[in-house]
Amino acid sequence: MASHFADRLCDAVKSKKTSLVVGLDPVYSRLPAVIKSHRQMNDEFDADAAVDAIFDFCTQTMRIIAPMVPAVKINIAFFEKYLWEGLETYYALITEADDLGLEVIGDVKRGDIGHTAELYAAAHLENPELAGLEDTLAPDAITINPYTGADGIEPFADMATKQGKGVFVLVRTSNPSAAAIQDFADADGRTMYEKVAEIVAQIGEKPERVGASGYSNIGMVVGGTAPNVTSALRQEYDKVWFLVPGYGSQGASAADCLRFCKPDGTGALINASRSIIYAYERPMYKDQYRDDWKRSIEQAVIDAKVELANAMQTKL
Amino acid sequence: MASHFADRLCDAVKSKKTSLVVGLDPVYSRLPAVIKSHRQMNDEFDADAAVDAIFDFCTQTMRIIAPMVPAVKINIAFFEKYLWEGLETYYALITEADDLGLEVIGDVKRGDIGHTAELYAAAHLENPELAGLEDTLAPDAITINPYTGADGIEPFADMATKQGKGVFVLVRTSNPSAAAIQDFADADGRTMYEKVAEIVAQIGEKPERVGASGYSNIGMVVGGTAPNVTSALRQEYDKVWFLVPGYGSQGASAADCLRFCKPDGTGALINASRSIIYAYERPMYKDQYRDDWKRSIEQAVIDAKVELANAMQTKL
Repeated sequence: MASHFADRLCDAVKSKKTSLVVGLDPVYSRLPAVIKSHRQMNDEFDADAAVDAIFDFCTQTMRIIAPMVPAVKINIAFFEKYLWEGLETYYALITEADDLGLEVIGDVKRGDIGHTAELYAAAHLENPELAGLEDTLAPDAITINPYTGADGIEPFADMATKQGKGVFVLVRTSNPSAAAIQDFADADGRTMYEKVAEIVAQIGEKPERVGASGYSNIGMVVGGTAPNVTSALRQEYDKVWFLVPGYGSQGASAADCLRFCKPDGTGALINASRSIIYAYERPMYKDQYRDDWKRSIEQAVIDAKVELANAMQTKL
Repeated sequence: MASHFADRLCDAVKSKKTSLVVGLDPVYSRLPAVIKSHRQMNDEFDADAAVDAIFDFCTQTMRIIAPMVPAVKINIAFFEKYLWEGLETYYALITEADDLGLEVIGDVKRGDIGHTAELYAAAHLENPELAGLEDTLAPDAITINPYTGADGIEPFADMATKQGKGVFVLVRTSNPSAAAIQDFADADGRTMYEKVAEIVAQIGEKPERVGASGYSNIGMVVGGTAPNVTSALRQEYDKVWFLVPGYGSQGASAADCLRFCKPDGTGALINASRSIIYAYERPMYKDQYRDDWKRSIEQAVIDAKVELANAMQTKL
């Protein structure tokens, strides 16, 4: 394992031949029937049963996808719903993902300043050395929120750099109301998200944060559904890895998302969550594979990789 | 207990005769020696021992302050450092605070959109009905981040309203780099934080969110250290409760903070954290009360209340 997060991403993307990453957003009610009918996991309203089912589903899913994709993005909100039981499950999944050779992005969207930011960074980026928690791993990278400015980014960036890990800062999200904040523009027509990108890039381009690959460990989250307002970022910030949500269920096309990739395929992680992990609900897979939910997920990953590869060929 | 959060705050502020709230930011290394020397709590590097010590300290502190202040603000980052062990302690303290009649603000600064925001809102504002977690209480209100716009606020606002709880949205923070983002201005000189305030106020002024007191359950976090740029918010948004950090250790004066209070003393919660909970480290108390750390905390609350009351008299 290379010690620099951005270099590890380059290696993983090249080795798996795709920028596709799979997002784990597990909801009990949507889990495969065979898991929900298991004797000890058949009660949605029992915290232990629910998190056991979610753990089982996510672990099996990761075993399917691990040979095919460079990384998983685990959305902590789906675990926080089960309070501390859920949080223990979240960390357990990170260990499983690491065992499977996947890079792990903890989608935690934390944000604060000063000592509080340092504590969040410790919780989410530092492998704990506390007795009782010593076998726990923190993810390889996390998502964070930029609203407090550089003071709210640097403590995370410093911890990530120290640990050989990474950070993805929200820059331009893909939801309808994002524009009111993130496209808010100054007298010169410069937008808030462009200002945020500049701050993030300044923090990320410090020499100690740039790996042998030429990429920084400080990346940006930019939604794939707004390619017209964001494709300039790829041109402007050549050291940045982009994490691009919205491919699949949220409606961004493969071509939209690939604007963030460089010609060699590095530079962007394109995330699909529901379209992959719930592939067995989609008629195109359900009709073919019936109750074989794992085969549906496997085929959905293959199909997404092919679609992205074809779009990349068209782009080049 | 009134069913509307803003009405409960009015009652609590009037009954305790202060807008002072105490922030719990517990760090093991700074706990009183008598707690750290307890046989089962004397190992900073053992997760169980550390969270037990923190729980003991926070519980004892809340017993001292509960008769004197309307609310506590519990900063979840200080608990997340201990992963799921810490999260269980955070929720245990909410139950203790509720038993003591304190309103509880969970300082969690969550932020996301869509289903993810709904799940965060459920975790942090809804008392869980899951078997295994059924005795757990969620806080009366939480802090959230506005960077994704209204889509990222409304799921929290809806859950809070449904549960008789509240939300405080970050509007203008008090850290040095906040200006680069939050004072970013459009061609008319209108700033980002003013735009955020407008969005928050629009969400908050819906009739179902406004209580008998005339206040909304959707409030704003505005730092006390930047009174020149923010006091206009009190004038403009008369339905809003402000949560004002920065009094005490962060350098905002009583007069700075009181700009957010209406003449009857309602409308703002003025938070002091380290200056109260570590009062026993301050020479003015240490010299007088020696190892009686509880007496130091008690006197620090009394002194802060007197200072705020005097500043309020001067203002009126």
